[in-house]
Order: sequence, then structure tokens, then C-alpha cells
Amino acid sequence: MLISFEGIDGCGKSTQAQLLARRLEQAGYRILLVREPGGTDLSERIRQLLLDPALEIDPFAELLLFSAARRQLVMQQIRPALQAGCLVLCDRFYDSTTAYQGGGRGVADLDWLRDFNRRVTDGLVPDRTYWLDVPLAVAWARRKQDKPDRMEQADPAFFERVRATYAKLAAEEPARILRLDATAPIEALHERIWTDVQRLLQQLGTRPTGSGSSNNHNG
Amino acid sequence: MLISFEGIDGCGKSTQAQLLARRLEQAGYRILLVREPGGTDLSERIRQLLLDPALEIDPFAELLLFSAARRQLVMQQIRPALQAGCLVLCDRFYDSTTAYQGGGRGVADLDWLRDFNRRVTDGLVPDRTYWLDVPLAVAWARRKQDKPDRMEQADPAFFERVRATYAKLAAEEPARILRLDATAPIEALHERIWTDVQRLLQQLGTRPTGSGSSNNHNG
Repeated sequence: MLISFEGIDGCGKSTQAQLLARRLEQAGYRILLVREPGGTDLSERIRQLLLDPALEIDPFAELLLFSAARRQLVMQQIRPALQAGCLVLCDRFYDSTTAYQGGGRGVADLDWLRDFNRRVTDGLVPDRTYWLDVPLAVAWARRKQDKPDRMEQADPAFFERVRATYAKLAAEEPARILRLDATAPIEALHERIWTDVQRLLQQLGTRPTGSGSSNNHNG
Repeated sequence: MLISFEGIDGCGKSTQAQLLARRLEQAGYRILLVREPGGTDLSERIRQLLLDPALEIDPFAELLLFSAARRQLVMQQIRPALQAGCLVLCDRFYDSTTAYQGGGRGVADLDWLRDFNRRVTDGLVPDRTYWLDVPLAVAWARRKQDKPDRMEQADPAFFERVRATYAKLAAEEPARILRLDATAPIEALHERIWTDVQRLLQQLGTRPTGSGSSNNHNG
């Protein structure tokens, strides 16, 4: 099973991905938690480029770099983990590219991106995507960094377009993408997700297979 | 005017690109000579990744990285140079992606790559492409490095597929791609190219505009 967490920066998805990872491990599941871009040597090197405020990066080049990092992550980590029976949790996956580079920066239309993302992920689609939706003001108040990275330097209108694109994707794929009101308290949100994941696991007939050897990239 | 040089590693294209650059400068033209991947801060950083033998890189991720480097080069260097009236010479351009990642590695079909390359280069097509064609044995004998980089570690069958794809592209676009027998002596090949370039310049009505302020990245 593959689960992704999506939303604008500051929505709380990393926190929720980590809480779910811990809960699943406690329940005896072997999990792989990855964050994008990253998770392989190449992808981490690409991440350094993408977050470097000193580098001039064209928006379409940015799309290609995020996608290269994702491709390597899918082929080197996610596919093997799924084949080994792990549950894979992704802190961002291809919906981020559609929302940020497609909707936010407007570098390509959503139809082309759908086909492109399918090629990049080798056809891999999450069984469930949690979209943690928060108003921009709430997300920004949560960001504690003194110095925003290159991706976080965009203006409010950019993030509103990103959010609107997530809304569009959720409307198009209601069976996969679950919108959650991420202004809710962390624990309440986690319980909501945990209830949904338990139902999904039951539907898919997935049982704990853990032997304690889980591989958690976010630690 | 935009001119690209293509061919398998060791075909002599870098030598010919540099000879043509010097000849054009002597004739009073302002030129920009770029090699791929490279030519911008981002593209050079991507080049380091692509040539690093220690990095595991999936073939489709490789396609995306080459394309990201090219996109940045087009938007940051080539387009502005063309607008400023420079002649631009590219030591490799998008035909390399079609030949190496498409034909050589088989990561995508040529129709999809044609559309993809058009998006990456923002619709930019060379006025002339010189394909320096040599048998593999000749090219390999010319390579003097003790230690091949990651791209040069592929097997002979790979380079035969690359060469066959160049042949296919040249057959499809005879008005743009000129095949040259690159077993010819360097000077003879340069004269052949120079004659063709002079005719092209006349056709396009391009005259010397140089003020000595040319920008030669391989310089």
C-alpha cells in the first residue's frame, strides 16, 4: 500500500506522515517513510539544487528536477519496498508537481502533466492521498524558519493557485484524494487519518508483517 | 542563427565546434559556444551529477536531468544570446537526448520525445545540425581518457543504437541535419562545415555584428 500526504508548505503533512508511520510500526507493519524531493543519493543531491536560494532555476527546469528526484526514488526505494511488503508513506508525491509547477507556476497544462507524471512514476498511483488543506494565513503562521528556502519565497498568489489546484485534483479523484481540514488539532487529525488507514488496510486485506526492520528515512 | 553538433562520444564534434567558433569570430561574428550539459550554474551542477560514476541514476531520471540542464541553458543563455544577435553553437543539443536516452536506453518512444524536446527547448530548433558520423571503433580509439565517465561506461551495443537513431533523425529531417563522414581529417571536415555555414549565413542574410565581446564558454 502506498499513501501520500499533500498540501501547501506549513499544512502539517510531515507531522501527520510521521505520526502515521509510528502508529503503523506500533501495530506491527513494516513501513518506508520518504519525503520528496529526497530519499536516494541522487534525489538528495537534486534537493540541494532545488532549495538553494542562490541558484537561478527556470520553472520548467524545476519541474524536470523534481520529477528526476521522484523517478529515482520510485525505482530505487518505493518499488522495491512495495515488493518487499512494506507500507510506503510519501511526504509529497506527484500531486505536488501538478499543484506547484502546473497550477502554481503554470509551466504545463494538467492533461500533459497527468501523462508525464504517469511516466515518471512508472504508473505508480497512491492507494490514498491525504490533502491537508489550510488557509494560507494559517500555514504561514506555522512556518518557523527564519529564512525561507527557494520554494518558499514565492508570493501569496502562487500558494493560492497551488491550493486551488489541489482542490481541482481532489474533485477529479474523490476515491483517492481525501481532503482534511488541517486547521484541526494535530491529534484529532491523526485519529481521522488512522481510522481511514485501518479501513483501507481491511479493504486491501493487508496484515502486519513487521519484524522491526522497518526503514524510516525521516527517522 | 543556432547550430548544433551531434554524434557519439569521440566523433570530434567538440573540436569542430571550437574550430567553427574561432573562424566565425575571425570573420567578425559575435558567437556563443556552449556545451551540454552545462553553460549555466544550475546546468554545470547537473552535469556533475550526470558524470559521477558513484551515483546510481535510473535511465528516465537521466533523461529528465539532461533536459533540465538544457532548459536552463536555453532560457538563461541561448535565447538571450540569439536576441542580442549572436550566432549560437551548441556542442550537443536535444538530438542527443533522442539518440542517447530514446534510442540508446529506450526510455521513451521517439514521438513522445519529439513533443517533450519541443517543450524543453521552448520550441527552439537549430537552423543546422552537423551529425559527425564515425564507426564506433574509430570513436573509441580517439578517446584518450584513462577513466571513462558514467555516460561512457555503456557497452558497444548501446552506442550502435545511438548511432542508428542519429541516422533515423537525419533521414527524417534532411533539411536540418547534415551527416558528415567524421573519419575525414579535422581540417577537411572544418572546411566542409565552413562552406556550409557561409551558405547558410547568406541565405539567412546574417552579417557580422561583432565587436569583440563574444562570449565563449569553452574558450
